[in-house]
Amino acid sequence: MRVRPIILSGTDGGGLWPLARGQAPSHLQPIFGDRSPLQEAARSLASADLFGPPIVVAQAQHRFLAAQQLADIGVTPEAIILEPASRGALAATAFALAWQETVEPEAIVLIAPGDQAVRKADAGAFRRAVSAALPLAAASDIVTFAAPARPWLKHRRAYADGLVDAGWLLAKASKLQALIDAVSPELGACARRAVAQARADLDFLRLDAATTASAPEIDFQRLLDAAQDGLNIQAIDFTPVLARDWPELHAARRDAQDADGNIAEGDAILLESANCYVRSPDRLTTLSGVQDLAVIVTDDAILVANMKAPGAARMLSARLAQTNRPEANAHPMEHRPWGQFKRLAAGDRYQVKRITVKPGGATSLQKHHHRAEHWVVVAGTAEVTVGAETRLLMENEAAYLPLGAAHRLANPGKIPVELIEVQSGAYLGEDDIMRLDDPYQRDA
Amino acid sequence: MRVRPIILSGTDGGGLWPLARGQAPSHLQPIFGDRSPLQEAARSLASADLFGPPIVVAQAQHRFLAAQQLADIGVTPEAIILEPASRGALAATAFALAWQETVEPEAIVLIAPGDQAVRKADAGAFRRAVSAALPLAAASDIVTFAAPARPWLKHRRAYADGLVDAGWLLAKASKLQALIDAVSPELGACARRAVAQARADLDFLRLDAATTASAPEIDFQRLLDAAQDGLNIQAIDFTPVLARDWPELHAARRDAQDADGNIAEGDAILLESANCYVRSPDRLTTLSGVQDLAVIVTDDAILVANMKAPGAARMLSARLAQTNRPEANAHPMEHRPWGQFKRLAAGDRYQVKRITVKPGGATSLQKHHHRAEHWVVVAGTAEVTVGAETRLLMENEAAYLPLGAAHRLANPGKIPVELIEVQSGAYLGEDDIMRLDDPYQRDA
Repeated sequence: MRVRPIILSGTDGGGLWPLARGQAPSHLQPIFGDRSPLQEAARSLASADLFGPPIVVAQAQHRFLAAQQLADIGVTPEAIILEPASRGALAATAFALAWQETVEPEAIVLIAPGDQAVRKADAGAFRRAVSAALPLAAASDIVTFAAPARPWLKHRRAYADGLVDAGWLLAKASKLQALIDAVSPELGACARRAVAQARADLDFLRLDAATTASAPEIDFQRLLDAAQDGLNIQAIDFTPVLARDWPELHAARRDAQDADGNIAEGDAILLESANCYVRSPDRLTTLSGVQDLAVIVTDDAILVANMKAPGAARMLSARLAQTNRPEANAHPMEHRPWGQFKRLAAGDRYQVKRITVKPGGATSLQKHHHRAEHWVVVAGTAEVTVGAETRLLMENEAAYLPLGAAHRLANPGKIPVELIEVQSGAYLGEDDIMRLDDPYQRDA
Repeated sequence: MRVRPIILSGTDGGGLWPLARGQAPSHLQPIFGDRSPLQEAARSLASADLFGPPIVVAQAQHRFLAAQQLADIGVTPEAIILEPASRGALAATAFALAWQETVEPEAIVLIAPGDQAVRKADAGAFRRAVSAALPLAAASDIVTFAAPARPWLKHRRAYADGLVDAGWLLAKASKLQALIDAVSPELGACARRAVAQARADLDFLRLDAATTASAPEIDFQRLLDAAQDGLNIQAIDFTPVLARDWPELHAARRDAQDADGNIAEGDAILLESANCYVRSPDRLTTLSGVQDLAVIVTDDAILVANMKAPGAARMLSARLAQTNRPEANAHPMEHRPWGQFKRLAAGDRYQVKRITVKPGGATSLQKHHHRAEHWVVVAGTAEVTVGAETRLLMENEAAYLPLGAAHRLANPGKIPVELIEVQSGAYLGEDDIMRLDDPYQRDA
């Protein structure tokens, strides 16, 4: 009997700003080299003898990126359940359980945070702990795991003996379902209704906005409190890596630290500095004579924070969101199902983007009311449709898309297409787009 | 009788990296709001009743930018003397004096560092000090000025009574000339020969490379030592602002500090931080819970340095220069006599630039052997020549420049032209340019 992982890949609290942002949550960012917490979490749960394919609960707006990241590491989920907006971890769990109820209600599930991973060195210990707990779950216990307390985990729920809740929950699906019904019959009913009314969309299961919006937002802790009698706490001797805060991540990733306690990722030079976390993938960042700093460099925003005073990123992220600053919400690089684009420059009446279309990818057939566009192909071969005409453009060839003309960009080739787009017009927002036909069935 | 300022705008030591670089020396960078140390130095010396037009000694490679900056603040130099490469402050002084000897050898000159300015609040005191010292200079004294010693000036020459050399020297030109001849007859002769052989080029006086290369490099201090008997030290009660090091500049610019001792320039947010110098003109930089940091953000390089341990920028700059890193030498934004350009993106076989041509500006008529170019005008009206054809391009119009085609870009209008250039080719270096005709008479 294999365990069904339920990976909760919902919102985050802004603790990894400026890398993580509203539209680019921490669990989808390349925090572990080129891999994201979601990928590391899924990898931790990819032992085929112990775990079956996971259910992933994610926000609809992140569906293509989440699916792509799972595909990139060879994980094929049993289902990707999409919430129009996150209603918290308990609602996400309820949605997954309601779906599980329709296929195999007596299965044993492992509820797993999508921003938590197991170090490779601890993978064996993790699997042994889950295996050892299986008979308990089969006997209808709710099993939690408790890891050695680390200072950076002290805000999580404290257990006796210096252990803290490691964040996983192993139990029969039906048992958890019953607990949710006990905690909030309204949530249980809402989740079942949402799953019953859900709509298949490509490989996704889309929950309805109106239904999910009525799901009560309840603290996950209430589930554990309700389980109190049947709660079985298993001690583990390793600590998972939780990607929620730079100081915490720095401390937990001691295997990535050099002899001075520094983690330096990207193009970084450190002189006489110690216990710093530097992340600067695209430009040179130099530190001299400093200690305990998180220095996180992105294209449009930089954080320099004292790691001895945690919470800085969260506070800044919230403050920027309050004033509607774009740096709180999105990166200049944005992902689309067909590839990605990055804003290179912008002026009063123009904007320049570098667009990458992956092999086989195609944008919607679209038009704009306020801008004209020039495309210059700089790598690969693009198939460009303008009005009634479709032609192939090679490197160093250009196309002009007049205002109002229907157009589409596709990559019929074997290598990525890169092109430079120069937009001209009085309004250049992403929302000036009318999709006439879309292979990815996006509404807007 | 007005004093002739001689402004030495030569090399710098890398203390303001990453803002200042080999091809972008500190005295030409916008350090004081949008004004450079050269502009602030020239402004300090622009009192028409006391000072005549200055002689500026600069490196040939910086001539257009230096001239433009002086023009922008309404200063018309008597001469801009160009060294092919800097031979140090004493050689620069010798070149200026050799030129002065040919027009008015008995004039009183003020030797002034090009990276030193007088605060506006101190402008009156500065003029009074120079005025008061004029009779001494007329009587053939060599007058130096000594400012209150500040910790950040302690590396400069210490005088009695807690005063340090303020960096200016007031004397008759003939007197200084005689001193140089005494210190190094070779330098005096070389400087006269260099001036005699100099070539007028537009508004510049270009010294010959072979002649100036033979000028001995001698410590400026030797001049003061030789003057010992006739050296007259005048105490002043203000301290000039010297742009040579971030900690020094931070301390000297106390008028730019907020209540917590922070200087925040550009898009910066500081939480619970004190005594920091943040400079981030083009992107958001956030600091939290830190003290005594210089955080200097440029397009391609970032410095985070403890200001209590000076010398970091100099050390990093030298280290990067040793490994030929481009960040030691030039900015992605480069100035040209016709305007400027900035590299926005680069790939294996392409490069994207935003080019700005000022009204009346024109590039050389040129061609490339290894690249083709697409131009898309995004602001203003450009006059584009390709081969035998010249036409006007407006916003949202494009031109294609095939490999090998002679082309020129000009701005016949009243507002700046902005355009996006997309280069394609196997070699994209700045040196793949054959100038067929150049309004600015550049050799290459």
